[in-house]
Amino acid sequence: MSEEPKKIYFSYNDIHQTIKDMAGQIKSSGYDPQLMVAIGTGGFIPARILKTFLDKPIFTVGISYYDSENNPKDSPQKIQWIDEVEKKLQGKRILLVDEVDDSRVTLEYCLRELLKHQPAEIAVAVLHNKRKEKRGEIPREVEHYFYGLELEDAWICYPWDADDILEQDRLSRS
Amino acid sequence: MSEEPKKIYFSYNDIHQTIKDMAGQIKSSGYDPQLMVAIGTGGFIPARILKTFLDKPIFTVGISYYDSENNPKDSPQKIQWIDEVEKKLQGKRILLVDEVDDSRVTLEYCLRELLKHQPAEIAVAVLHNKRKEKRGEIPREVEHYFYGLELEDAWICYPWDADDILEQDRLSRS
Repeated sequence: MSEEPKKIYFSYNDIHQTIKDMAGQIKSSGYDPQLMVAIGTGGFIPARILKTFLDKPIFTVGISYYDSENNPKDSPQKIQWIDEVEKKLQGKRILLVDEVDDSRVTLEYCLRELLKHQPAEIAVAVLHNKRKEKRGEIPREVEHYFYGLELEDAWICYPWDADDILEQDRLSRS
Repeated sequence: MSEEPKKIYFSYNDIHQTIKDMAGQIKSSGYDPQLMVAIGTGGFIPARILKTFLDKPIFTVGISYYDSENNPKDSPQKIQWIDEVEKKLQGKRILLVDEVDDSRVTLEYCLRELLKHQPAEIAVAVLHNKRKEKRGEIPREVEHYFYGLELEDAWICYPWDADDILEQDRLSRS
């Protein structure tokens, strides 16, 4: 009998508050991004909330670990990228946004791809960082890494994935 | 003394539930999209929640009415578009997602742009439709138009724009 993995539930309001706090942390750091790049689809909601507090435009990239038959691939692949990236990213201070830093593989992939376009600076903001051994690494060009909360290596249940949002609220309080 | 415009407040849970209901409406309609296109940045959160119920990939487009000095422009402009759109949209059934149908100008603009790439079909899903005279129009090629709620022409206060999320919750209940 395999053990049920531990699950951690968050409400939308929890997450909104965590992102507000993280925005404060970003502002105090002195890092002033000119634009955000949200990693889809997990980064869409965190980036949109962060925009309320940082007021920077959002570009998106779509990344997939799975092929069209839903089999995992060896490495992440782009499903959507930024048009004319060179013009839009070159010389800019970028904030890359995602919901969770789990294995760090997707973050590393996106950071390396974005670094090719010679931004002035690039930083990372994730809602949650899992405390675990990471397969990916943050390239050393990246000077700022922000997270909203650090969590144990559990199964994180996000409110946007909930079928029953009132049950999710209840579980997030327990 | 000008009259304060009426404001309507929604909580995240309100919106999650509205989108779940809208997903049911989309499924019952028989329209089965193969992919969503979210209009950024308003459509990011609705599209991400809708993905939970429809399980379709999300592409994004960024549209802006304002120039870099924050002056309104005559018509919407693309700030990000889909790479190699022809390949990705051609022959596909698309669901275009946004948060609100206000003047309908942005929707018309996006629909006409997307129609150039010969999708098999294109439909619209908005969280809220405002009952008002529309400056834009839905092109007649569009057979399905879904909305979560129809509202009077008021100032809609979305939870993702809230500075104080508990106050937003309180206002959404009053």
